[in-house]
Amino acid sequence: MDIIKSPEAMQCRVLELKRAGYSIGFVPTMGFLHEGHLSLMRLARSTCDVLVASIFVNPIQFGPNEDLGAYPRDFERDETLCEQEGVDIVFYPDPVGMYAADASVWVDEDTLSRVLCGASRPGHFRGVCTVVAKLFNLVLPDVAVFGEKDAQQLRIIERMVRDLNFPVKIVRGPIVREADGLAMSSRNKHLSESQRKDALCLRRSLDIAQQLAESGELSVGQIRLRMVELIEKVPEAEMDYISFVDDATLEAVDQLVHPVLIALAVKFGSTRLIDNRVVVL
Amino acid sequence: MDIIKSPEAMQCRVLELKRAGYSIGFVPTMGFLHEGHLSLMRLARSTCDVLVASIFVNPIQFGPNEDLGAYPRDFERDETLCEQEGVDIVFYPDPVGMYAADASVWVDEDTLSRVLCGASRPGHFRGVCTVVAKLFNLVLPDVAVFGEKDAQQLRIIERMVRDLNFPVKIVRGPIVREADGLAMSSRNKHLSESQRKDALCLRRSLDIAQQLAESGELSVGQIRLRMVELIEKVPEAEMDYISFVDDATLEAVDQLVHPVLIALAVKFGSTRLIDNRVVVL
Repeated sequence: MDIIKSPEAMQCRVLELKRAGYSIGFVPTMGFLHEGHLSLMRLARSTCDVLVASIFVNPIQFGPNEDLGAYPRDFERDETLCEQEGVDIVFYPDPVGMYAADASVWVDEDTLSRVLCGASRPGHFRGVCTVVAKLFNLVLPDVAVFGEKDAQQLRIIERMVRDLNFPVKIVRGPIVREADGLAMSSRNKHLSESQRKDALCLRRSLDIAQQLAESGELSVGQIRLRMVELIEKVPEAEMDYISFVDDATLEAVDQLVHPVLIALAVKFGSTRLIDNRVVVL
Repeated sequence: MDIIKSPEAMQCRVLELKRAGYSIGFVPTMGFLHEGHLSLMRLARSTCDVLVASIFVNPIQFGPNEDLGAYPRDFERDETLCEQEGVDIVFYPDPVGMYAADASVWVDEDTLSRVLCGASRPGHFRGVCTVVAKLFNLVLPDVAVFGEKDAQQLRIIERMVRDLNFPVKIVRGPIVREADGLAMSSRNKHLSESQRKDALCLRRSLDIAQQLAESGELSVGQIRLRMVELIEKVPEAEMDYISFVDDATLEAVDQLVHPVLIALAVKFGSTRLIDNRVVVL
């Protein structure tokens, strides 16, 4: 397994590999890998000759009051995990190599990114789209795998690939959960013991929504009420949003008639967690 | 020579060509080809195995009060000229194929595009950057050639390639002029006989600036005064801007101490023409 830090060297290497006829699979990550990331690597591994994973905590997708500095990092552990999953190349650039001091070109998504996390995190998806466009141009993947936990990000990346015609196939990787149902996230590390228990309310509120839907309740107002009740009982949980949106357009819906994405974000102290589920009746 | 209209077919074709080891050269145009475009094709032809030219009047780079509808078109003539220049593939998409009705991802340059034509044409360079990013992803060129007549566009595209890490080498093609010095432009077609003569004031004012600079005049204020004097004598000329900017940053300068780009835009009736020169002392 090779570790490449220079963007130019990364691009040269894949250009050589592609000229030699190899297909490239790609899993972009911010590191501090968990089973969720590893599942994406396994998905990608099966589609390609050469598997590239990137580890880059992208500064421009963090807002000024967000947790860029506190975002957990452990490159040595990540390296071992990548090796175990059969990654061929780890792309591990530093921010100075990725962004010129006078960088002035950005990729903006102006519809899907207005809601959900985009509403709470202005500039976040510009940062995500820009870095993913850069990574696609540096890694030149045939296939790239993104996790469904970041539901909005996934749909925005798919939109970017469509609208900018990137020659990349996007594969969706299912959410991976802890034994008790908490969606895996690098940020779970920051939870205290009591917060860790409280954090189950995300998954539980989604379960309630699904049960209500399956029992015939189509009113978003009614379902949301029950989700809010559950989360408000949890002392340390501070709700950011619970949204019911059309799975394709991310427009708010008030009835579960089409496939609906139910997404929520909840804060525990300074740790903000997200989860989601698509309900198809 | 093949003509491809579908974006998907275009991308499939170049992916095949690249897998077979061919290098791709690319000249994007809005058609109504003149000797300026053909000179770019000759430059590109010498660098690559397969030469692609695109002909696409990109709607999103025209403002609501601009000349999208009136922009001159003559595909049959363009086709013959491309064939004569050894173009292998003409990419000739229609706007509906290029832009989904719910398109929502755009490429923005937020520094170099604020001045010169960007100041008079809000949204123009977002349209240019977005379509060029799309074309790069559809044509996957190793080398792309852009003309120096569109000086600001050229620098913005170079910046986009740098900031988004496109694996494309940009080559600059020198301005091609008519025998009397008018820079070639598809829009010259719209000039009346008297406007055609008046339009020489762009080139002449640049000549004056250069002569003054060579004779030791470094003050932008003094040089601009002489250029304005010349243009104001021309009855039908309506000045849009004359700008003196640092050739690399496009920041306004008041002394000719570094390489300076002198760029101007002048309207003749509804026809807006541009010209420029880099003065290096």
